[in-house]
Amino acid sequence: MKNFKLNLYFCGMLEDKNPSKTPLSSLGEFGLIDHLTQQFTLNNKSSVLGVGDDAALLDFKNNPVLVSTDMLIEGVHFDLSYMPLKHLGYKAVMVNLSDLYAMNAHPTQITVSIAVSNRFSLEAVEELYRGIQLACSNYAVDLVGGDTTSSTQGLILSVTAIGSASKNKIVQRKGASANDLLVVSGDLGGAYAGLQVLEREKAVFKVNPNSQPDLSQYSYSIGRQLKPEARKDVIDLLDTLGITPKAMIDISDGLSSELLHLSKASQVGCHIYEDKLPIDPEVISICEEFKINSTTAALNGGEDYELLFAIDQKEYDKLKNHPLLTVIGYCTDLQSGNQLITRLGQQIPLEAQGWNSLKEGD
Amino acid sequence: MKNFKLNLYFCGMLEDKNPSKTPLSSLGEFGLIDHLTQQFTLNNKSSVLGVGDDAALLDFKNNPVLVSTDMLIEGVHFDLSYMPLKHLGYKAVMVNLSDLYAMNAHPTQITVSIAVSNRFSLEAVEELYRGIQLACSNYAVDLVGGDTTSSTQGLILSVTAIGSASKNKIVQRKGASANDLLVVSGDLGGAYAGLQVLEREKAVFKVNPNSQPDLSQYSYSIGRQLKPEARKDVIDLLDTLGITPKAMIDISDGLSSELLHLSKASQVGCHIYEDKLPIDPEVISICEEFKINSTTAALNGGEDYELLFAIDQKEYDKLKNHPLLTVIGYCTDLQSGNQLITRLGQQIPLEAQGWNSLKEGD
Repeated sequence: MKNFKLNLYFCGMLEDKNPSKTPLSSLGEFGLIDHLTQQFTLNNKSSVLGVGDDAALLDFKNNPVLVSTDMLIEGVHFDLSYMPLKHLGYKAVMVNLSDLYAMNAHPTQITVSIAVSNRFSLEAVEELYRGIQLACSNYAVDLVGGDTTSSTQGLILSVTAIGSASKNKIVQRKGASANDLLVVSGDLGGAYAGLQVLEREKAVFKVNPNSQPDLSQYSYSIGRQLKPEARKDVIDLLDTLGITPKAMIDISDGLSSELLHLSKASQVGCHIYEDKLPIDPEVISICEEFKINSTTAALNGGEDYELLFAIDQKEYDKLKNHPLLTVIGYCTDLQSGNQLITRLGQQIPLEAQGWNSLKEGD
Repeated sequence: MKNFKLNLYFCGMLEDKNPSKTPLSSLGEFGLIDHLTQQFTLNNKSSVLGVGDDAALLDFKNNPVLVSTDMLIEGVHFDLSYMPLKHLGYKAVMVNLSDLYAMNAHPTQITVSIAVSNRFSLEAVEELYRGIQLACSNYAVDLVGGDTTSSTQGLILSVTAIGSASKNKIVQRKGASANDLLVVSGDLGGAYAGLQVLEREKAVFKVNPNSQPDLSQYSYSIGRQLKPEARKDVIDLLDTLGITPKAMIDISDGLSSELLHLSKASQVGCHIYEDKLPIDPEVISICEEFKINSTTAALNGGEDYELLFAIDQKEYDKLKNHPLLTVIGYCTDLQSGNQLITRLGQQIPLEAQGWNSLKEGD
């Protein structure tokens, strides 16, 4: 992720200035679907029939099936002025795969529906699908269906991820109990910090379109925002370590929000320690620059797509030294509530201040 | 469908004039999902875990799984000035169930993602979900997941239908061969005729908002447009008759377009007879009033959600007198092409003039 192509960041703003673009209408709806999906092949045994019939046909033998879906709207969930289309395609897939990994399951298929206004050329949509294809390839997932239509405004993406797991492996949000340890993968707040940098650079770019910002010092955080990875590696690692979490959720809306979901579903309280929150030094540095409390970024930033899970204390030895995993606290009884224990030892109730697209004034 | 509530048709235009509406932001994203889905229960054995975790958990035992998805965009696929929200919710589900019936499979779950602008109140979204719930109830389908977010403009719906069938029952678009009979269910052109009436009444309403049109003479066609039914009954009937079609597709974009898909997938030509096309007398009457050729409406109208399928000639006796099913022609070799044989005995090549949301100028 460190060797991210910085020169791509502001391509979005230039997208309509190339005179040789092909209008989508030249292909028609079925022609477009054929054209966009011809590069995709079915690689999973469970994918019997993909794009091209009324429905995709999948065969999971005797394993249960997991399904998750998310919708991404231009101007609400992404800003094409700094989100290259290829990255958007990649991220739209990651968001959905992450939900299946959060069940300790393996996604094997996706469907992708897009609605595009006539401001998008064929080349732009191809770029979006290149990102989708890269995600499919990196995560061994097959594109098996979808819908392609026009929108009156902007770009809309709806992705559904489908997968399976053996019954005894599936982990829900409920299942944690008092004295379990709370663990997160990777680090937190990076995607939010990256977003702050990109929003600032967008403002600079508007004033001076010739500015050539050096963003290399922010590359980790910008990468977290523009090209997140779903934590397949963590699911594989847990399997290798012989750990099946008791409860799990992915961190899409911010750690606080997810802790409250886990607390509600498992009927436990969650106590976490401020000094245990894993935060990358670059993120701390960006927070200082933007005068943001880095703990707040880690708790409420969102879009990190890390995993939060609860394990029995006796599993601790199996993961205690692993650089990908951090124990941040423990579960307690429901009455003790959900608390952040600060560096000074104070208890602060956790609140969901994560991203909510329906909030007034956003 | 005949006792359709005509007084609902133009409710959409009045949606924002009630002063007692509740803003969506008062609930927040998770509150809204909880509120909207609390009336939904899981009734199918295959629905293990529905709304409320990172993914839905389904168990189809050893049966293959079918998945289909469609996206509906305000201003492209529907017009809320004459499409009541409850009907829209119902229709959005039907569109997707129809795709699974077209595989001779039974849908058992749906996910529904919606994006709504702040022009919609909680009451409006509740009305939409009442239609979704009615569809789930009528077709024994469980709502198991989805996404709820804001949009910058209008209403967007993305529905995914999931179901299963035993392996030897599944019917694809490919599989028809020369000399097979081509059969359609129900009748054609009704949804298109209904749309013509609604578009005209919308224009009248704009000039005179106090007009109280008597639409009872158009009620069948308007019902076909506003409250289509997916043909579960046809799938059940075929099962009762002991017929497994060799190839099948649902008629969403118009008979011509679907015949061409079936022709391409099965590598056969399709010859159909103009005088065999099933058209309701009301539709013929509307076509006369609007100076539309009723054959054109039947061939290219779209949105009827009937089923088109091919059967071996030896199955003919099983269905020949059934009022729901009409033999409209036969399959021939690919080289003979796809032809309409007119009442005068002329052969006219079939072309896909069905609805295409990506066409210029639409």
